[in-house]
Amino acid sequence: MFATMGALGLAPTAQAANREPVFHAPRASDFHLSGGKGAAKVVIVGGGIAGLAAAYELGKAGYDCTVLEARDRTGGRNFTVRGGDSTTDLYGNHQTARFSEGQYMNAGPARLPQWMVTLDYCRELGVPLEVFTNTNADAYLYNESAGMKGPMRYRTAKADMYGYVSELLAKATDKGALDRQLNAADQERLVEFLKDFGALGDKLDYTGGERRGFTTVPAAAGTPGVELGNVPSASEILSTGVGRYFSFEFGYDQAMLMFQPVGGMDQIPKALTRAIGAHKIRTGAAVTRITDKAQGVSVTYTQGGRTRQIEADYCIGALPPNILAKIPHNLGAGVQTALEAIKPQSAGKIGLEYASRWWELDHRIYGGITETDLDVTHIWHPSYGFHGERGVMIGYYNYDTDADSYAKLSPADREKRAVAAGVKIYGPKYRTELASSFSHHWRQTPHLEAAWHDTVGGPDAPVYKPLNEGTGRVYFAGDWLSYTDAWQHGAFTSARKAVTALHARVLA
Amino acid sequence: MFATMGALGLAPTAQAANREPVFHAPRASDFHLSGGKGAAKVVIVGGGIAGLAAAYELGKAGYDCTVLEARDRTGGRNFTVRGGDSTTDLYGNHQTARFSEGQYMNAGPARLPQWMVTLDYCRELGVPLEVFTNTNADAYLYNESAGMKGPMRYRTAKADMYGYVSELLAKATDKGALDRQLNAADQERLVEFLKDFGALGDKLDYTGGERRGFTTVPAAAGTPGVELGNVPSASEILSTGVGRYFSFEFGYDQAMLMFQPVGGMDQIPKALTRAIGAHKIRTGAAVTRITDKAQGVSVTYTQGGRTRQIEADYCIGALPPNILAKIPHNLGAGVQTALEAIKPQSAGKIGLEYASRWWELDHRIYGGITETDLDVTHIWHPSYGFHGERGVMIGYYNYDTDADSYAKLSPADREKRAVAAGVKIYGPKYRTELASSFSHHWRQTPHLEAAWHDTVGGPDAPVYKPLNEGTGRVYFAGDWLSYTDAWQHGAFTSARKAVTALHARVLA
Repeated sequence: MFATMGALGLAPTAQAANREPVFHAPRASDFHLSGGKGAAKVVIVGGGIAGLAAAYELGKAGYDCTVLEARDRTGGRNFTVRGGDSTTDLYGNHQTARFSEGQYMNAGPARLPQWMVTLDYCRELGVPLEVFTNTNADAYLYNESAGMKGPMRYRTAKADMYGYVSELLAKATDKGALDRQLNAADQERLVEFLKDFGALGDKLDYTGGERRGFTTVPAAAGTPGVELGNVPSASEILSTGVGRYFSFEFGYDQAMLMFQPVGGMDQIPKALTRAIGAHKIRTGAAVTRITDKAQGVSVTYTQGGRTRQIEADYCIGALPPNILAKIPHNLGAGVQTALEAIKPQSAGKIGLEYASRWWELDHRIYGGITETDLDVTHIWHPSYGFHGERGVMIGYYNYDTDADSYAKLSPADREKRAVAAGVKIYGPKYRTELASSFSHHWRQTPHLEAAWHDTVGGPDAPVYKPLNEGTGRVYFAGDWLSYTDAWQHGAFTSARKAVTALHARVLA
Repeated sequence: MFATMGALGLAPTAQAANREPVFHAPRASDFHLSGGKGAAKVVIVGGGIAGLAAAYELGKAGYDCTVLEARDRTGGRNFTVRGGDSTTDLYGNHQTARFSEGQYMNAGPARLPQWMVTLDYCRELGVPLEVFTNTNADAYLYNESAGMKGPMRYRTAKADMYGYVSELLAKATDKGALDRQLNAADQERLVEFLKDFGALGDKLDYTGGERRGFTTVPAAAGTPGVELGNVPSASEILSTGVGRYFSFEFGYDQAMLMFQPVGGMDQIPKALTRAIGAHKIRTGAAVTRITDKAQGVSVTYTQGGRTRQIEADYCIGALPPNILAKIPHNLGAGVQTALEAIKPQSAGKIGLEYASRWWELDHRIYGGITETDLDVTHIWHPSYGFHGERGVMIGYYNYDTDADSYAKLSPADREKRAVAAGVKIYGPKYRTELASSFSHHWRQTPHLEAAWHDTVGGPDAPVYKPLNEGTGRVYFAGDWLSYTDAWQHGAFTSARKAVTALHARVLA
């Protein structure tokens, strides 16, 4: 039976475990090998993760890189909001965050799976990591549309759903319903698994149990604990629809353990910026034209109200495609068609700073995500500062029409609407303990205008060939040219691909 | 249908959420209210968590407490091993840990669930917390006895088991096997859940998918990723027995999120010791007799080779029951019978310090626990120091006969045996990168002689009445007098119970 076991979905050998294709960063020694040819000058349009990664990798090999970034900070959608940070959105809403010292929200990317190359950059750049609390058995599930009158903890929902699934399958097995699928030994193994998985009794019944949680927790002698009562029927728990949230944590990109940089996601662009050299990065520099020429590339930009121009041997276009598509260029209709085929998507977040960490004190929830069918969608508990005086909850993290509908409100009204939703789940302290809020909507953010993109047809569809292969002396990089859109991993690996192609051409 | 939904296993109101019974710590003002009666003198036998917690709580109210601790440090089984720490076990094995600066192992308790009162003490005492990585989708499962030729990642095992369970139940439902249990609407909801839960196709088949993991991860355009191949059959995955490990994370005491004090679990006894006042704690003080008298208690102990005696109004016996049972006393046969009814249990751990964090670099495993059917039982990846130069793995955490059998070996042979087991799962670096090791076995630890205890019949069995109610002027406290044996929560809540009774008596 185990003849093929060595290959049976078992972990690949350590060295090959979940690794991206081998990347050989351009090295200064490459040039020596090629006869002292010397490095080229590269202008990188966009100081987000893809642009910074390209400048960082090329810089190692001695390329003369200049990064042009329209915003006043690097990082692009990697944006950590702290007290004093200001934004003005495309609707004209101006906000200044009033978060306390040490408090922050990651408005863009906020979590890192173990297998993504982003972690390698954190290691290389010395950015310390801590766990991002992507799932928590004590966080809540709340489906108002299913008639739930209050939240249910993840652990309770799982116990009930797994319990009944196990009971139903174990009993069906017992009655011979699986006789054609499994032999007797396998059926026995299955039932043994289900009894443990679903906490079934000897008669294969699910009747609740301690996995659901307690109203009074077990403690000293005299206090054996009181289990949470009112075990629902299978029909009742199915009707709540809470089971729909379970598969999130099985995702190849979302399964715990997940991580975050200590002190905010922008520690990554900050470290990249330091490694590149801040003098090589021009912020407040909005590109207005890209001109590919026979011997080089000319990039025009405005900075401080003045129009400037930079000449280089090569260019890397590392802006979002929807922004790039608005910049005049001479790269041809193929490039323009490809850029316009990629569709910007909406998402928004609101950070709610509270004057106490009532979710830890009253609800015993330390981190994690509460899932809802409300228009706030996800509510995040902070993954840092446990037991501190204050904390920033993410009051909504939503997409598409939900995000657009919040974006149309004033920041004060966004807060009001988000708080009203949260009160349904957490009670009055969700409102009374609130100190301040800051909301951010990517589709309405100048120079970015998208949370992420739908690269329609996939990044290797023929229409994207001019972007994937580069056109003239211009290469392209961004998560939108990867299979992990919306992840920094996509930006990093896309930048690696672009610099590899550029470097190979220079060496050729 | 939802008439009872408000009570349907839903979270209790915030204030009552999973709380232990209300504890009112003794306060100095209690004495003023009772007419300036003044506080009593209490001698606390044992400086583990229960003893320290008792001294801490009584000290708040002005009681004159003295703690007698036989070991050279407080904390009892809460023991964090760092470089330079030495132990000699009852077999005479002497070890000095050679861990590098900043590296440690928690030889005793190592994890804290969100609901336990231990977290409240961390908050009150200012002990910072971080996530303890109790489960990790990228950690391994390995059942050698089932014929597995290599480890399987948790995420792969879950995808396969959940996939087949879902397929089998969905198909059975589809064929009418559940018609008597569920109506049509519920069956539809169940199948919808199962399709998502098991990642089933339109024909309700499980055929693998990205949840299992990748051999080449998705990256830039041109690299869509290659999913881990060789999806096992239902029979094959059942035969591995990997499903037996899944329910661990549903446990009321083990479900993520779990926590640990930053810098080692002994930050808790250290903070308690500071709060009590180190001058009130006598270490190296082994108690040799407890004498209950009409007006007080007399405790005899040896310290520095000399016999000393301390007189107090009350005593709290906060040693392990197996140690208390060996100390002469005049508390009667009921106390002795109760102490002897509680059975000490074995457990051991080995810390393996490595010169590199190869599990992060090569295996992409950042924290978490690998489960095995080998005699090492559990292998823990460190929950701190991600991306550091070095790290301490727990090479075995085992119990009972497995622990006893390792305990009988020399420390060098324990290491050899543990490493041989780990190499089967992780490959040669488990041996070649090893820098040093330190092993600890609780049953063989002087003055403790148990990892935890089996309070046979439960802590409220009649035999334990003399311990639970106190006898004469002696009260008892310890996790072994609680419903959470082996957890500091049990020690804390038991200490609260003892000081509450003592204080009520003093005030009466």
